[in-house]
Amino acid sequence: MIRLREEIAMNEKLKDFMESRISELSPVLEVAVKTLDTESRLKESMLYSLTAGGKRIRPLLISGVLHDLGKVHPAELHVGAALEMIHTYSLIHDDLPAMDDDDLRRGKPTNHKVYGEATAILAGDAMLTESFSVIGKAPSLTDAEKLELILLLTRTAGAEGMVGGQVLDMDAEQKKLSENELENVHRLKTGALLTFAVEAGAILAKAKATDREQLRRYARHIGIAFQIQDDILDVVGDEKVTGKKTGADAEQGKNTYPAILTMEGARQKLLHHHTEAVKAISFLKDPDPILRLIADYIIHRVS
Amino acid sequence: MIRLREEIAMNEKLKDFMESRISELSPVLEVAVKTLDTESRLKESMLYSLTAGGKRIRPLLISGVLHDLGKVHPAELHVGAALEMIHTYSLIHDDLPAMDDDDLRRGKPTNHKVYGEATAILAGDAMLTESFSVIGKAPSLTDAEKLELILLLTRTAGAEGMVGGQVLDMDAEQKKLSENELENVHRLKTGALLTFAVEAGAILAKAKATDREQLRRYARHIGIAFQIQDDILDVVGDEKVTGKKTGADAEQGKNTYPAILTMEGARQKLLHHHTEAVKAISFLKDPDPILRLIADYIIHRVS
Repeated sequence: MIRLREEIAMNEKLKDFMESRISELSPVLEVAVKTLDTESRLKESMLYSLTAGGKRIRPLLISGVLHDLGKVHPAELHVGAALEMIHTYSLIHDDLPAMDDDDLRRGKPTNHKVYGEATAILAGDAMLTESFSVIGKAPSLTDAEKLELILLLTRTAGAEGMVGGQVLDMDAEQKKLSENELENVHRLKTGALLTFAVEAGAILAKAKATDREQLRRYARHIGIAFQIQDDILDVVGDEKVTGKKTGADAEQGKNTYPAILTMEGARQKLLHHHTEAVKAISFLKDPDPILRLIADYIIHRVS
Repeated sequence: MIRLREEIAMNEKLKDFMESRISELSPVLEVAVKTLDTESRLKESMLYSLTAGGKRIRPLLISGVLHDLGKVHPAELHVGAALEMIHTYSLIHDDLPAMDDDDLRRGKPTNHKVYGEATAILAGDAMLTESFSVIGKAPSLTDAEKLELILLLTRTAGAEGMVGGQVLDMDAEQKKLSENELENVHRLKTGALLTFAVEAGAILAKAKATDREQLRRYARHIGIAFQIQDDILDVVGDEKVTGKKTGADAEQGKNTYPAILTMEGARQKLLHHHTEAVKAISFLKDPDPILRLIADYIIHRVS
């Protein structure tokens, strides 16, 4: 069993759920890369970032939706793996010198620091491309379901989603944003893939339209909460636990929730979105749903 | 009508065919980008490279296959647009300082020279992502056909195809390759997307398996011929026509066919692959097929 570091913040039930899902997901991710008939250096670079100890929060959301709706689906881990590949490619490209120019990610040297910039760019490109292949080959999905997932992924990961958010974020470096503008950046940059996760879970669970709408609301609120807590951790987090330098946002003059709302205001906003997220999933029959535990975790996490 | 510059080298029938297809393809490409709900700066950057006057040889191959098999398909231009988007993203990333570090492409400043490196990386990422969306939304295709095309695209564009070829090409900069090794680099780096084009045409035309196999052979040979002519043009081409600096490969110590085989040997090899490509499509009923004219054009082109 993989032991997680967030011992203090995490509910036992969620911890068990996370550990079991991560230990099932890891081999699916590794097989997706290792079986590629390509240069070993490229595969190494892809695996380096894919296995760098991410929290796997996105695949976990897919699994959480299925669990809470009382469903199982053989493609759960494959769709989770595809999503984690998209998330990982975005981190590799985001860390590049031309973008955020980060040397460390989760306490380890970033991909381009180890493999060089050219390989890092190509490893990201390959991972983005292969993620569609992983969905296209996932088991027990109809062609229509595969296409629905692929189109949802292009919408949430591409120009209208995550990539669009990264462009907005870059442009924002030069100016002071309002709270609404900041929320819009994060709705796209971080929120879009969280929405994909929850919607993908709903597709696999064949959830009815009204439940799916509520799950989308849940995703929106935990997306904002996730980002607020990220910003708070940048101010008060422990470098040894977060794996990144505390105070980096302020140093770079970044737009953050504490900077716009004060720390107290940011904490209140965090609780507000947590409450709204929990309300959105009140339709679930499970009195102690994984999705609520994930919402709790998001606002209490220390890394 | 768009007038092409390769007046000398191009057969009238092919020229008419090319001009009609390019003028139909251009609006499909533009609509695919302009209708995206995203930052205008990102769209501008994507359109800049998409409309930079590429030869559209890949979409043209799709159309050529359909034409020569006597078929039409409403998705012809959409699949062509998706392929051209993949090709264009690869050029944007390839030109980056961390990769080939090129300032000019087709006689115009490269994407990162105009929009900056960060936007160029993201424009490439967005274009790669959206290409799958364009296929997923193409008209008059069954879900099974869309998935077949998407999986073929991931295989030919990703780690096992074009991206893998770019890694190989990068690694080759430090060493002297044999002819076989050089052929393998180009089979992936350039050949894979040409193969996609021809196979996609065969899928749209519902070509029978034996014809499809012959078309694949054709694609392999024109792929190699295309690269040999590229290498020859780098030595003897007219900068004003090619849009890039003559002699750049030799200056950078690149592995090229003339360097390995001598110029005379490279020319013979070029003719050999042309002959093999023409043989592979001898099954076509049309006595003057577009695919043969494309093969002729590839070995006679001056840019």
